[in-house]
Amino acid sequence: MTYCIGMNLAEGLVLASDSRTNAGVDHVRRAGKMRVLAEGGDRVVVTLSAGNLSLTQNALNLIEHRERQEPERASLRSAQSMFQVAQAIGDAMREIRARDEAYLRDGGIDPSGSFIVGGQIRGEAPRLFLVYSEGNFIESSVETPFFQTGETKFGKPILDRVVNARTDLVTAAKCSLVSFDSTIRSNLSVGTPIDLLVYRRDSFQIGVQHRFEDTDPYLVAIRQSWNDSMRRAVAELPTPDWA
Amino acid sequence: MTYCIGMNLAEGLVLASDSRTNAGVDHVRRAGKMRVLAEGGDRVVVTLSAGNLSLTQNALNLIEHRERQEPERASLRSAQSMFQVAQAIGDAMREIRARDEAYLRDGGIDPSGSFIVGGQIRGEAPRLFLVYSEGNFIESSVETPFFQTGETKFGKPILDRVVNARTDLVTAAKCSLVSFDSTIRSNLSVGTPIDLLVYRRDSFQIGVQHRFEDTDPYLVAIRQSWNDSMRRAVAELPTPDWA
Repeated sequence: MTYCIGMNLAEGLVLASDSRTNAGVDHVRRAGKMRVLAEGGDRVVVTLSAGNLSLTQNALNLIEHRERQEPERASLRSAQSMFQVAQAIGDAMREIRARDEAYLRDGGIDPSGSFIVGGQIRGEAPRLFLVYSEGNFIESSVETPFFQTGETKFGKPILDRVVNARTDLVTAAKCSLVSFDSTIRSNLSVGTPIDLLVYRRDSFQIGVQHRFEDTDPYLVAIRQSWNDSMRRAVAELPTPDWA
Repeated sequence: MTYCIGMNLAEGLVLASDSRTNAGVDHVRRAGKMRVLAEGGDRVVVTLSAGNLSLTQNALNLIEHRERQEPERASLRSAQSMFQVAQAIGDAMREIRARDEAYLRDGGIDPSGSFIVGGQIRGEAPRLFLVYSEGNFIESSVETPFFQTGETKFGKPILDRVVNARTDLVTAAKCSLVSFDSTIRSNLSVGTPIDLLVYRRDSFQIGVQHRFEDTDPYLVAIRQSWNDSMRRAVAELPTPDWA
């Protein structure tokens, strides 16, 4: 299973993903789902992948291959907007599915995958897209400033309660880690390490990129603080008159 | 959509359910999902239904019909253990499915439904079962003292963090309401009113049974308290050294 969060806030982007992949319970291993496709100069582009690993990896591999080998088809370097980047990723997904889908279906394998794509190209504000299996995509909005993919439900309440477009980057990053902690507690197939990336608007370089192992002191401190606060929050709930 | 919680704790049972039912978005209405099948004397039996409303309602209607009309098949009155009650409910589910399933499938309707069954029959401790669509069932344990059905994920983290077999009934009831509040915020198709029932072990009568409308003052107070606590909990999270 997978869990990914992307947030597009006034101050910039927060992206987070887990690193657990499994093809059956006896084949659980790690694979980072966060990929920095471009950084520096006039652009930053980051993806978070969910779903079938071969499809999502190879859609990105295809893009990176062309970036190097076929400069005339270099979609990342030539894109003038994040909209074009999302299109290119959707197109690559379609191309890989056209190659592989029939074979996957023959094997009873779900041929689906999705990307959260965040970044900024000079001349635009940071933008965040959710690219679906079918290659179509949607963009975040002020009303819905975050996307989640994979095992989304356990960790959604904290985001719904706290995160809006004006939330500062550090608070949003903390909430992402809490959201991951809730998800990992409730679904064993989502697991550490957690990759966290913070991009400050107009910086055109990645501010923070950190991989949190399960014993990372800051992750442990966040977990402990949240757990203590939850217990106190329960203790402070008003008592009903029938109690 | 539906959301139901059943808890079997050292002090007794806590049961809660929403009252929203929908057959398509244009046909949303209320239907209580909590039913007290027996109370008083030597037994208390309560069910929470999820899934196809016609199947779950009629499985219970069948049991209640026989209780009155066919005393020789009265499964509730004659049951000597909650195990037999769960069996009777599973059997009734199978009987109704045998009658209706082919017709439902013809109409493209999912012929599934489930019950959380809680209660106590004198001579036993309170027991809690989850009866599946297929009529088989599982029982709660000290390690897993609660069951959820329906839209379970949004409201699971708070239960995972706080509730264990030694949690007192009032705290458990409060946590149930918080779990419902989180679910209702994140999924519009789960809605108030919320039915809450608290049964104290060995009392053989229902201690509290209350229907919380959306504007219920206690529900509003719980919601406000939790929201405030969540915001404070976020504000109190430790700050990373990269911030």
